[in-house]
Amino acid sequence: MKIKSPYLLFIGDATDKLSIKMALGAANWRQELCVGEYSVKGCSVTTGIEKMNIKQASEKGAKSFVLGFANSGGRLDKQWLPYIIEAMEAGLDIISGLHEKLSSFPELVEKAQQTQTKLVDIRHPLQKFSTGNGVKRRGKRLLTVGTDCSVGKMYTSLSIEQSMKKSNFNVDFRATGQCGILIARQGIAIDCVVADFISGATESLSPDNSAEHWDVIEGQGSLSHPSFAGVSLGLLHGSQPDALVICHDLNRSHMRGLPMTQFPSIETTIELNLQAARLTNPAVRVVGIAVNTSSVSEEKGQEICAELSAQFSLPCVDPLRDGADAIVKKLG
Amino acid sequence: MKIKSPYLLFIGDATDKLSIKMALGAANWRQELCVGEYSVKGCSVTTGIEKMNIKQASEKGAKSFVLGFANSGGRLDKQWLPYIIEAMEAGLDIISGLHEKLSSFPELVEKAQQTQTKLVDIRHPLQKFSTGNGVKRRGKRLLTVGTDCSVGKMYTSLSIEQSMKKSNFNVDFRATGQCGILIARQGIAIDCVVADFISGATESLSPDNSAEHWDVIEGQGSLSHPSFAGVSLGLLHGSQPDALVICHDLNRSHMRGLPMTQFPSIETTIELNLQAARLTNPAVRVVGIAVNTSSVSEEKGQEICAELSAQFSLPCVDPLRDGADAIVKKLG
Repeated sequence: MKIKSPYLLFIGDATDKLSIKMALGAANWRQELCVGEYSVKGCSVTTGIEKMNIKQASEKGAKSFVLGFANSGGRLDKQWLPYIIEAMEAGLDIISGLHEKLSSFPELVEKAQQTQTKLVDIRHPLQKFSTGNGVKRRGKRLLTVGTDCSVGKMYTSLSIEQSMKKSNFNVDFRATGQCGILIARQGIAIDCVVADFISGATESLSPDNSAEHWDVIEGQGSLSHPSFAGVSLGLLHGSQPDALVICHDLNRSHMRGLPMTQFPSIETTIELNLQAARLTNPAVRVVGIAVNTSSVSEEKGQEICAELSAQFSLPCVDPLRDGADAIVKKLG
Repeated sequence: MKIKSPYLLFIGDATDKLSIKMALGAANWRQELCVGEYSVKGCSVTTGIEKMNIKQASEKGAKSFVLGFANSGGRLDKQWLPYIIEAMEAGLDIISGLHEKLSSFPELVEKAQQTQTKLVDIRHPLQKFSTGNGVKRRGKRLLTVGTDCSVGKMYTSLSIEQSMKKSNFNVDFRATGQCGILIARQGIAIDCVVADFISGATESLSPDNSAEHWDVIEGQGSLSHPSFAGVSLGLLHGSQPDALVICHDLNRSHMRGLPMTQFPSIETTIELNLQAARLTNPAVRVVGIAVNTSSVSEEKGQEICAELSAQFSLPCVDPLRDGADAIVKKLG
């Protein structure tokens, strides 16, 4: 089941671009799904799309009210309940990627019944999964993997999808996190699945397909991250990738959130991922490197990519600055 | 919170020893926790301990009624509800390792409130976990890892604990599956934890301890099993093992439940586990090999263990036939 569109992106009184990641992802990658942005007094950031209130959005055909912000701890501040209720009264479904469930608020559950709207907690999968079986599926799969968490795996995946579409590939982006799910209108928040079903859920995410079809699967975490490597490994095995793209962010000295950890080299990341991926697809290969170079000048970024490209004999791009055409050429 | 003991082990009308694994585990490893076994007409297997009904068990001080059997699919057959209700009326808590929750039966929830007894679904953790942080904890940890699922990791762990106790080690067995939890009276069913928290839950299972204390942690799955490797990796990282014991079962030609898969060698299993474990404990080492040789004669079993011991320069035992003293000597 797909999330209903178009979306009204609600960003509350946010003052930090990082806190409206959900809204920005949708506005940047699927503007055609977004009818407008709704913010309240005190808000100092924007996704750049048209501002409007709930009534205006409803008149323009909005079908979903998206909580486009994140609080630390993933809780839903009660101050936003009246806005959510107003949106339901206007007939909109409510979409949340917060950890705290919409359905844990009795007043919202009651209002949803009354207004025949849906509370969609996209971080909390409702499906029943099977355990993985490792049986090879038809069609081709590309998975983005990282040196660390939050190094741009989703943006890289979307950039690759965009470039493949341009070149007339038959391709689907497969979302594994809440932001990706909002963009794809469907997917599975893989880190919220019960541990026994990580690879099984991933298998269901990119089902058997026609031989020339590609799934571009959004990676999660890193095999070198002590908190999340289990998720990354189950996702890798369930994806059975034919192609891996290594994602990296400049200027990291330790794993995200863990100051005492060592950062793995790109070489180590390639080795670890190839070795593990071979369990379910012996033909796996690395087809490119994607680097977030936003911390340096464009010129310096290109220099770094050229060096990495030479070092690993692989295309290396900053997908936001350069696009992903160079990587997609390797999929030919 | 610990499960209340002593237990009455209920095995229903089971006719297959494999289906009463829970009851057998408790009777074999913690007979002192078990007051008796209760079976009904048609049952053709036994744990070997004294048979009695609920009334007799209650008079002997039983505190918990353990569902000691498993149906395929982990469902609770409604035919057992009257027995469960009788046990609650006798003041016993109900302990279940089934997938289907006791708390999903309204009549049991109501009866539990009425009788002030507890429904304990040991497969379904109630705790709130944090994500792992990889910070090194004090004390020492041994983890059993396997070439496959169900190769004897729990029995090996318990045998090692037994041998360590005999040698006056300060040691705790840490359970990660329902059967182990029944034996230890506490633990975390690690494959039932939400994926994001696998390593965090594991970290909480063997907390900071005195320098000479050992935790013997029950392993789960295998890094080479396409269905469950994510669980195994998160468990490995969260355990920060100082010592690994490699568990193996003779006569496997493919991974459990997956006929098309290749079986890893012991050598590969050692390499994969050491490599992954070094992320959270660079000083990790393999201290022994445990082989389930029950499919061959004792003599042949000892021959195989001697060969493996020579090949890997490690003690190699069948923990049920030989005990684990040879491995424990390496911990000295």
